[in-house]
Amino acid sequence: MDHIDLSQYIRDIPDFPQPGVLFKDITTLLKHPVAFRHAIDRLAEPFQGSGVDIVVGMESRGFIFAAPLAYQLGAGFVPVRKMGRLPAESVKVSYDLEYGHNTLEIHRDAIRPGQRVLVVDDLLATGGTVLATIKLVEQLQGTVVGLAFLIELLYLNGRKNLKELNNQPPIVSLIQYERPEPASALRQTPD
Amino acid sequence: MDHIDLSQYIRDIPDFPQPGVLFKDITTLLKHPVAFRHAIDRLAEPFQGSGVDIVVGMESRGFIFAAPLAYQLGAGFVPVRKMGRLPAESVKVSYDLEYGHNTLEIHRDAIRPGQRVLVVDDLLATGGTVLATIKLVEQLQGTVVGLAFLIELLYLNGRKNLKELNNQPPIVSLIQYERPEPASALRQTPD
Repeated sequence: MDHIDLSQYIRDIPDFPQPGVLFKDITTLLKHPVAFRHAIDRLAEPFQGSGVDIVVGMESRGFIFAAPLAYQLGAGFVPVRKMGRLPAESVKVSYDLEYGHNTLEIHRDAIRPGQRVLVVDDLLATGGTVLATIKLVEQLQGTVVGLAFLIELLYLNGRKNLKELNNQPPIVSLIQYERPEPASALRQTPD
Repeated sequence: MDHIDLSQYIRDIPDFPQPGVLFKDITTLLKHPVAFRHAIDRLAEPFQGSGVDIVVGMESRGFIFAAPLAYQLGAGFVPVRKMGRLPAESVKVSYDLEYGHNTLEIHRDAIRPGQRVLVVDDLLATGGTVLATIKLVEQLQGTVVGLAFLIELLYLNGRKNLKELNNQPPIVSLIQYERPEPASALRQTPD
């Protein structure tokens, strides 16, 4: 696969969602057919042939990457959603955000014990949302075989926080930022 | 393409999101690799080779179909989101729901004049969300070349409401329900 510098398709938005935050806007990548296709193919590549059964995506930007990855890998897609959005019986997990906390849900029958699960989101920041999602998958006795992100904010140590996991699933990210520029690009909400 | 009866993968949930509503749960289809892949391929098929530039998906279940369709058709993906979620300059449209109203947004630079746009959502009910989305696309001078849905609730007359459009884009749906069974399956929120 030819390499494309995907970072050139990311747009910086100052002061969103609040003053002092430099937001990494991915919509300029998504709307570009070649960049979008390239991103999905590169996220999928490390997991080809590794028997992924289910790709889990977190509401709602995670859906944008997880659903094409499921399609591309021949896997099923499972949404993790915010409280109250899933219609059937679900399991829940709460976790702390910078301000307040958040609850995520997954359907109780979304994953069968032993299924191999790839967890996908647009952004790896501190890893809070990902850790919560992994807990949900593990409650259902799924096996997390990988974590994949378009963007990784290295200075927020998400990868380090994920090292505490029992098994050490490979972590893939396509665009890394070494440091805040000039302000934290920490995403304030998990969607 | 072999035909699969996709309706067998849809689960009925009584009294969600409120008493008297029979909700059509698509997550049982999404998690099934063959059914999910088949749904995406059948939604894409009528638009192969028709020069779709952009696939627009509505937050957030629309993302689950629009993103793989964009990938499959070699198009870009553009999200239509609820108020306040998009970081850059956007155009807005408000429309009435059964109870109250809703505002949707699209980035002003998401679509270039003349681009060919496929609009995708999980469900066609009355067509309110779709009509609002078409207005957004047309404000950006995009050309809607098709509408695609997993499910169509025929008794809510969405297709008839969409007939008032200037050009008559083809409307594709994979699963149709003739009548409420037993209660309206009208979705109360656009996500």
